[in-house]
Amino acid sequence: MGGSPKGMPHAESCPAVREVLNRVGDKWSILVVVLLRDRSKRFSELRRAIEGISQRMLTLTLRGLERDGLVKRTVEPTIPPRVDYELTALGRTLLKPVQALEEWALEHRDAIQHARRRYDETGQRTKEAAG
Amino acid sequence: MGGSPKGMPHAESCPAVREVLNRVGDKWSILVVVLLRDRSKRFSELRRAIEGISQRMLTLTLRGLERDGLVKRTVEPTIPPRVDYELTALGRTLLKPVQALEEWALEHRDAIQHARRRYDETGQRTKEAAG
Repeated sequence: MGGSPKGMPHAESCPAVREVLNRVGDKWSILVVVLLRDRSKRFSELRRAIEGISQRMLTLTLRGLERDGLVKRTVEPTIPPRVDYELTALGRTLLKPVQALEEWALEHRDAIQHARRRYDETGQRTKEAAG
Repeated sequence: MGGSPKGMPHAESCPAVREVLNRVGDKWSILVVVLLRDRSKRFSELRRAIEGISQRMLTLTLRGLERDGLVKRTVEPTIPPRVDYELTALGRTLLKPVQALEEWALEHRDAIQHARRRYDETGQRTKEAAG
């Protein structure tokens, strides 16, 4: 049941994998994991580092990562309380595939930007919409 | 400029990488790439395979992947037209990091589900909200 032609279970045939990807396969989670790679960070540091993320979305992202056991949240009882986030041992295992994705992005960003320009210049979809 | 302490440019210091992650670092794009791994597929096949995706979201995801040069769209002038999607050579380069992420999900899904149960049972956030 469910093996792919190459004998490896794929997302295609494996809801559990898809469910996990649903959580970590979003840009905000990936960025947070990357940002916590070298050291723990405070909420405000993360927010400043991730351009365009709202306070609410960062809260939800961190809560999801905490719930999945990937990030640990520590509250120091100062006034105001100091809240730090760090990767757990499980979270650190995600660094390797996330870095592979990041390296891919770095290696291919020129090709992607070139493709985007070409796509936008030919205006293929615009013509379709007009026709 | 921009190198990390370990000498590798990070998303943290590299908006271009972040911009690419913004595109491919979402669950739908990752799932589409996984689904096109072995062969080209029609829109309707993809839609059936990705539980919970709306027609509009799949259209936007495929358009984004096409714009980035990762997916090629072929229209056969039958009635109705038959539209196929396949990975380009550039798109195939994404398979390796995406499979790494998928393998990670497969390897750690039990640990993650365990963490989720524990988090939900302790109801940590509920107590906070109540306090």
